[in-house]
Amino acid sequence: MKLNINLKNAQYPVYLERGILSKISQYVNLQRKIMIITDTNVPKNYATTLQSQCKESYIYRIQASEHSKCLSVFEDICRTLLKYHFSRNDCIIALGGGVVGDLSGFVASSYMRGIDFIQVPTTTLSQIDSSIGGKVAINLDDTKNIIGAFYQPKAVFVDFDTLKTLPRRHYYNGLVEALKAGLIYDKKLFDIFENTNIDDHLEEIIYRSLCVKKDVVEKDEKEMGLRKILNFGHTIGHAIESYFDLTTYYHGECVALGMLYFIDEDIKKQLLPIYEKMHLSQNVSYNKEKVFQYIKNDKKASGNLITTVQVKQIGKASLVPMDLQQIYQILKG
Amino acid sequence: MKLNINLKNAQYPVYLERGILSKISQYVNLQRKIMIITDTNVPKNYATTLQSQCKESYIYRIQASEHSKCLSVFEDICRTLLKYHFSRNDCIIALGGGVVGDLSGFVASSYMRGIDFIQVPTTTLSQIDSSIGGKVAINLDDTKNIIGAFYQPKAVFVDFDTLKTLPRRHYYNGLVEALKAGLIYDKKLFDIFENTNIDDHLEEIIYRSLCVKKDVVEKDEKEMGLRKILNFGHTIGHAIESYFDLTTYYHGECVALGMLYFIDEDIKKQLLPIYEKMHLSQNVSYNKEKVFQYIKNDKKASGNLITTVQVKQIGKASLVPMDLQQIYQILKG
Repeated sequence: MKLNINLKNAQYPVYLERGILSKISQYVNLQRKIMIITDTNVPKNYATTLQSQCKESYIYRIQASEHSKCLSVFEDICRTLLKYHFSRNDCIIALGGGVVGDLSGFVASSYMRGIDFIQVPTTTLSQIDSSIGGKVAINLDDTKNIIGAFYQPKAVFVDFDTLKTLPRRHYYNGLVEALKAGLIYDKKLFDIFENTNIDDHLEEIIYRSLCVKKDVVEKDEKEMGLRKILNFGHTIGHAIESYFDLTTYYHGECVALGMLYFIDEDIKKQLLPIYEKMHLSQNVSYNKEKVFQYIKNDKKASGNLITTVQVKQIGKASLVPMDLQQIYQILKG
Repeated sequence: MKLNINLKNAQYPVYLERGILSKISQYVNLQRKIMIITDTNVPKNYATTLQSQCKESYIYRIQASEHSKCLSVFEDICRTLLKYHFSRNDCIIALGGGVVGDLSGFVASSYMRGIDFIQVPTTTLSQIDSSIGGKVAINLDDTKNIIGAFYQPKAVFVDFDTLKTLPRRHYYNGLVEALKAGLIYDKKLFDIFENTNIDDHLEEIIYRSLCVKKDVVEKDEKEMGLRKILNFGHTIGHAIESYFDLTTYYHGECVALGMLYFIDEDIKKQLLPIYEKMHLSQNVSYNKEKVFQYIKNDKKASGNLITTVQVKQIGKASLVPMDLQQIYQILKG
C-alpha cells in the first residue's frame, strides 16, 4: 500500500508493506552518507539491514527513553554529523519509535539549516501517528516538545513486521492514537476497536489512522485550525506525562486518560470497555494542582486561552477555546 | 523608506528611518508578551525605548560575543520564555547586531515550533545583511552557523541613528557586506565605495545593499542556486574566523580576506585602496593547513565539492564548483 502526503511545499510517499525494511534502497537514494538514528529497544538487525543497503553509513544509538529527546543528545548527534563531515546533501534515517523520530527530525531540520530525513517507524505509535505530519521536537526539562519545527520527511516506510518484536504495553500505547483518530474523524475505525479483534485488523487500523492524519495535515499543515483536533486528549495527557517525569506512563496511556475529560458520558461508556481490551489503566491518581501547572505551559495555550478538543459524537470533533479556569474545573471534575 | 520582501510563504516589510526605534508600536502589535533579546554592547536606552511601547516585556541580555551564539545560551533563553509562559502568539524582538539576530531568530524558529520575531538591527552588519533573508543559526564549538533554520522575521526596523554609537571597527566590519554586495551584483554600489566619502553615503549604501539582498533572496530563498553568490568571500572567510576562535577578527574582516582569493588581479588593485579607506587589514597571517580543515566542514560543501563564488567583473558573480584540492591550491596561493 502507498499513501501520498501532499502539502504546500512538500510531497512525500508513505509505503506500507511487510518486509519493506530490506528494500528501502529501491525507493530512496542511499548512495550518500547516511546516519541511522535508533534506540536501545530496536533490534540491532534492523539497523544492519538498513546498513547493508547503504554506501557509507553510521549508527547513532540513543537510550530508549523520552529523556533522550533533550538538547544534550541533540547536540551530541550534531557533533557526530560534523565529525563525519555530513553535508547538506547527506541524509538521516530515523529507525525506531516516536522518540527517535521526533529527535532525528529536529536534528535534520536544523543541521546546516536542514538535510534530508527518512522515517522508518518501528512502533505502533510512530507508524500510526508521529512519523507523518512533520512535527518534530525535543523536550526542555520536563516540558514536552517545546523546542522543535515543522519539517517533513522525504519518505516514510511502515514495515508491519517490525511490530512483532514490540512489547504488548508499547503496542497498545501506540494504538491509543488510532483510537483517537477514530473518535475525532472516522467512526468506522472506532467500530473496529469496539467490535473486532484488534490484532486481526492491525494493518487496516494503521492504514485508516494514516488516512485521517493525511487528510487533516493536508488541510492544515501548520496547525492554524483544523489540525488542532489531533490534539484530542493531549492537553491534559501531556501534562500528566510531564507530571510523571515523562517515564512512568507512556504517551498513549496519558492521552487515553486525557481523552476521558472531553467526551460525553455515553461515549465514555463505549470507550471504557475498549480501554480494558487494550489493558489501559483508567485509575491513575495524580496531584491535579501540579498537573494544572504543566497545562499552563502548554504550546496550545494562547494567553489565558487554550483550544480544547471535544467529542460529542463518535467520528466528529469540535474545537472549544477555554480559559485556564474552565480547564481547571474540568480537571478537578 | 520601505522595502517589501516577497517570498513564497512570507512577506514582510523593512522600514528604514532615523528614529523609528521609538515608533515601532505603530507598525507591529506589541500588545502581547515581548521578549527583547539584546547584548552588552547595545546602549541600554534602546531596550527601554522599546519597552515603553510594550504592554508586557522582558529583556534578555547576552554577552556581546560570537560565543553567545551557542546551545547553552539558546537553552537558557528557551527556559526563560517558558518561565514567563510565552505562548505561540507572543513575540521576540532581536535588538542588536548579527549575533543577537541569528540567535534570537533560531530561538523564535524553534520555540513551540515557531513564534513571531522582529528584527531591530543596530549595527552596519545586521542592517546591511543579516537582518533580512531569514538565515538564523547558532554555532557548535567553533564551527559557525551549523545549527539553524530558514525563518523569516515579521518585520525589520532599520534605525540609522543607532549606528552613531557603533565603534568604528564594528562600523567598517559591517560595511564589508555592502562592498561584497557591490562586487557581486551592483557596480554603482561599488563605485560609491571607490569614489566617495563612505560616511556621507551611508543611508544609500545600506539601502542599495538591502535591494541586492532582497532581489537575490526573493529569487532563491533556500539557497538552491543564485543565493550562493551572497557567500562570496565566506568559504575561506568563515574558516579564518573559526581558526581565530571566532573572536580575534570580526566576521566582515574575515570575509574581506576571503574575497581576495576569488577575484582577478585588476579588481584586487581597485579593491585594496578601499580596504585601506575602511581600515581593513590585508596582512593577517594564519596557518593555512588548519584553515583548510575548517573549510572541509563548510555547509556549502557537498561531498568533495564546494560551490565557490568568483568575481571577474565588478557587479557580476559566477558560481564555480571546485573540489577541495583546488580550494587548497587557491588558499596556498
